[in-house]
Amino acid sequence: MTLLIVMPDKTKQAESWARHLRKLDPEIGIHIWPEAGTPEEVEMALSWRHRPGEFLKYENLKCIASMGAGVDHILCDPNLPPNVAVTRVVDPSMAQSMVEYVVMTVLNHCRQTHEYYREQRRKEWKPKIPRTADNLCVGIMGLGHLGMNVALRLKQMGFSVVGWRRTEAAADSVTTFHGREGLRSFLAASNVLVCLIPLTPETRGILNRELFDQLPADAFVINVARGEHLVEDDLLAALDSGVLSGACLDVFCREPLDPGHPFWSHPRIVVTPHISSLTQPARVAPQIVENYHRMKTGRPLLHTVDPDRGY
Amino acid sequence: MTLLIVMPDKTKQAESWARHLRKLDPEIGIHIWPEAGTPEEVEMALSWRHRPGEFLKYENLKCIASMGAGVDHILCDPNLPPNVAVTRVVDPSMAQSMVEYVVMTVLNHCRQTHEYYREQRRKEWKPKIPRTADNLCVGIMGLGHLGMNVALRLKQMGFSVVGWRRTEAAADSVTTFHGREGLRSFLAASNVLVCLIPLTPETRGILNRELFDQLPADAFVINVARGEHLVEDDLLAALDSGVLSGACLDVFCREPLDPGHPFWSHPRIVVTPHISSLTQPARVAPQIVENYHRMKTGRPLLHTVDPDRGY
Repeated sequence: MTLLIVMPDKTKQAESWARHLRKLDPEIGIHIWPEAGTPEEVEMALSWRHRPGEFLKYENLKCIASMGAGVDHILCDPNLPPNVAVTRVVDPSMAQSMVEYVVMTVLNHCRQTHEYYREQRRKEWKPKIPRTADNLCVGIMGLGHLGMNVALRLKQMGFSVVGWRRTEAAADSVTTFHGREGLRSFLAASNVLVCLIPLTPETRGILNRELFDQLPADAFVINVARGEHLVEDDLLAALDSGVLSGACLDVFCREPLDPGHPFWSHPRIVVTPHISSLTQPARVAPQIVENYHRMKTGRPLLHTVDPDRGY
Repeated sequence: MTLLIVMPDKTKQAESWARHLRKLDPEIGIHIWPEAGTPEEVEMALSWRHRPGEFLKYENLKCIASMGAGVDHILCDPNLPPNVAVTRVVDPSMAQSMVEYVVMTVLNHCRQTHEYYREQRRKEWKPKIPRTADNLCVGIMGLGHLGMNVALRLKQMGFSVVGWRRTEAAADSVTTFHGREGLRSFLAASNVLVCLIPLTPETRGILNRELFDQLPADAFVINVARGEHLVEDDLLAALDSGVLSGACLDVFCREPLDPGHPFWSHPRIVVTPHISSLTQPARVAPQIVENYHRMKTGRPLLHTVDPDRGY
């Protein structure tokens, strides 16, 4: 049996993954797409944004492992073979990376860092009263592994924090709202909204005009989940009409973001190139190899997702 | 007896202080410099960057209260009346503000935020591997009220932290070096150096070439103490020769920073207009009023400094 690494247009990164996997187990037969060896021998795929239909070619495929925390790029394929397990990455270093990115972005919002950088270019000395942690409530949409880590750290930093999740969970350590009914109260409390939910048919386009209108005045939106959560024109309209004070976007429907896209030059949008939580092959390879061995020996896989739920 | 607010060129801010003090005790006779009422009646001054020699005019002056955490702007006056107590501000909200500024600045250094902002202007998508907390040691020079708060928070965020102080102290909760002998080991460990020491004749110009040379490769310097700690030409030389990777400066010898100053346009210097820890009159007024009453009734004052030590 073999493992196929599928990363269209990212040959160098695919080779780095192969090196890290081989270091842990030199016996694994690894191919890098589009080279796949004998298709019948491929039983596991490690994948990031494959071409739809691709996985139908491997009749003995048993597991598709996402390279990241999200699996939307796998489940969006209408021609996924049935009865194939899908797994995601759950990694403390990715959570730490996400925590650092969101804390940094919230603090930059409080201090108007973007504005100071602009003023530095113009050589202008203009001290501004900062927004302070004790006057700001951060709303975390999505309280999974990443969301909960972010929520707890912000709370520790002195921010008020509220969370929102799809279904009720017992004993959350932050004030949590859930379901459609809880969304309105959650939004009304969130001076800063952080989107950290999985992308599913239900959550696609959830960051839209109707949602922005329910946030308090001067609210700020941070999207570190998926570009497809956001209705782009609604964001631009909300910024231009003053409903929102700004946004920081790390994810986009098409990445890299097109040079002609209006987000690049909007004075109240900060764009970063999908860096909030980078998957580091060295840290993640062990769980991929572990699942490879579990699959081979018929034991239950780690971090499988429910395709119907979408995460 | 009266209280004199001395803030040359900052009339609006002086009036805000007067309002906050009066709100707490309408009985206090308050004057705003240069108007001082009857000079013999002035027993307390609340001061920020007075004109040297000014305080000799008030023969019954008993206490000069700094508006900030530092008292260098008072003690640098060679014509200070003898036997006058000097006090400083010790305030949790200032510590919180300093913590937020330093954490934000360290995270922005890790993620190269400044570089991403520049690339956004050029519409360039260039993800970079971040420096991570677990690979970075932050060195805090000065472990007073502000320094210790900053150190503990950074440690909580996952950074390695070392501290340096003038004299040995018992049971620090971070690894601490002290004195001249400890400085070399402290610097050798500090990938990011945060200057938070008081300005005294001993520490003036401490951020100089000799010190920069003892930092690890690629080090970053954050100065949130006083502009006079830094030898400006040494910083520029260290940046240009690659000894340092960058610097973030919030304080300067002359503020506002002159529009012709090379710091504004240096690609690896971030300039902010002395905002790391703003004194908020509403929060600080209670300790000023408390000291006014202590002085009137002959009780020991809060937060006095040792003029010989300089803090």
